[in-house]
Amino acid sequence: MSTHPFDEAVRLQVADPACPDVYTGTSSPAYWNMVGPFGGTTAATALQAVMQHPARLGEPIALTVNYAAALGAGPFTLTARPVRTNRSTQHWAVEIVQTDASGADGVVLTATIVTAARRETWGQNDVPMPSVPAPLEVTRQAFIAGVEWINRYDMRPVRGAIPQVLDGSGQDSVTQLWVRDDSPRALDFPALAAMADVFYPRVWLRRATRVPAGTVSITTYFHADSRQLAQSGQGYLLGQARGQAFRNGFFDQTAQLWNEAGTLLAISTQMVYYKE
Amino acid sequence: MSTHPFDEAVRLQVADPACPDVYTGTSSPAYWNMVGPFGGTTAATALQAVMQHPARLGEPIALTVNYAAALGAGPFTLTARPVRTNRSTQHWAVEIVQTDASGADGVVLTATIVTAARRETWGQNDVPMPSVPAPLEVTRQAFIAGVEWINRYDMRPVRGAIPQVLDGSGQDSVTQLWVRDDSPRALDFPALAAMADVFYPRVWLRRATRVPAGTVSITTYFHADSRQLAQSGQGYLLGQARGQAFRNGFFDQTAQLWNEAGTLLAISTQMVYYKE
Repeated sequence: MSTHPFDEAVRLQVADPACPDVYTGTSSPAYWNMVGPFGGTTAATALQAVMQHPARLGEPIALTVNYAAALGAGPFTLTARPVRTNRSTQHWAVEIVQTDASGADGVVLTATIVTAARRETWGQNDVPMPSVPAPLEVTRQAFIAGVEWINRYDMRPVRGAIPQVLDGSGQDSVTQLWVRDDSPRALDFPALAAMADVFYPRVWLRRATRVPAGTVSITTYFHADSRQLAQSGQGYLLGQARGQAFRNGFFDQTAQLWNEAGTLLAISTQMVYYKE
Repeated sequence: MSTHPFDEAVRLQVADPACPDVYTGTSSPAYWNMVGPFGGTTAATALQAVMQHPARLGEPIALTVNYAAALGAGPFTLTARPVRTNRSTQHWAVEIVQTDASGADGVVLTATIVTAARRETWGQNDVPMPSVPAPLEVTRQAFIAGVEWINRYDMRPVRGAIPQVLDGSGQDSVTQLWVRDDSPRALDFPALAAMADVFYPRVWLRRATRVPAGTVSITTYFHADSRQLAQSGQGYLLGQARGQAFRNGFFDQTAQLWNEAGTLLAISTQMVYYKE
């Protein structure tokens, strides 16, 4: 059985058997974006380190990833440090360092992760899944030449596809789409973290104009536990994204992800740089 | 002229003139919550370190604060490290360490902060301020015995005040309130970061029941620059908060803050632990 490209992309090796905090990895050509790998895969890699760390307590609750610089092709070093372990929660600090073309080491990513042992409590979902056509009733988004990572996802926009007519006529910034890995892969936390970032920059939709844009910081909160991820299996997720405000070079982008059964699995928010 | 209690609360001393990254501070009795200082003040303190750091580039864009353990009374050490400085953005890692009753040092807070030199661009606000009565037409919220920090804010709930009848009859989790420092104080980034966290736990409103709850991680994005903060001056801000989902011990809480002129200054999201 061949390995799924997502597993390849987030694969980490323990750098030193004496220190479980330090890993080495390689940025993934299969998930290449314009000038580096898809940020969702990089966020997933930060989370993967914690998932496989021997000291981990519980499951992910919160993940914040800051993209300090473009991750380049080739190897990198990732450090995942449990900075505080409580009775039912644990706090992690993650850093990725890469050697650049000049031979200098630089921090390209910082992340903080909270894991927790969850218990059953009263619950309530106040954001029901929007009523949309089933995944297979929606046309799959065409590939984009030169953007390899797009080919790793089966994305079916219900609303708010990338504007084809770039005339500044945008009315809102809402996208709804079905998404799953291509080929299908059983959902886990790193995959969910990556899918929270599959939405193209909201500024393109709001303005119906393409301008350079890139995520600076993304935070994802996990409402699902591993049981609910297992229930999602290889099915599609419905993702919804919108921006609240765009001002002086930065806009925010909030998102929700439900599984096909309508369970809200995760919510996410990011701050995105844009030009012009 | 006496110092404002907020300035006292976020005051930091450089611990070592040779190293601008390390500060000492003291948790504030004037902003005391139930078992430690108000988390908003603690987040503001993390941001304050970056604001006064000699290497700072630009103004805050994104702030994520993770509450790893309860900050106790007394002194703490704060480290604010610029991990990456680019042409127009800068990434910071912040940690607060405190010595506990047993004499052991422990990390009580981790934070990441992004600052940036902003330039004028196309802009758009898609979240207009809700239409509500003016601040002085709304009754000020009564104090809560034993919760000192509440007295440091003039809060005037327009909608979604703390339920007085705890009968499980909650319908939604939306609070709208006017808020400003008491006594009034000109708005700056640390104060704005603190005000993003003035909303009581959404689970109390949604269930009309009080259960133990505490923020685990909060992320605030700043849409305002210092010019827009100056325009806000000592005026009220309108804050709005709601929860999207409550499940197995954690709920999310999203918020927006506008100034009286209707400018969206910041948005925020947090993951909150709750019991039962």
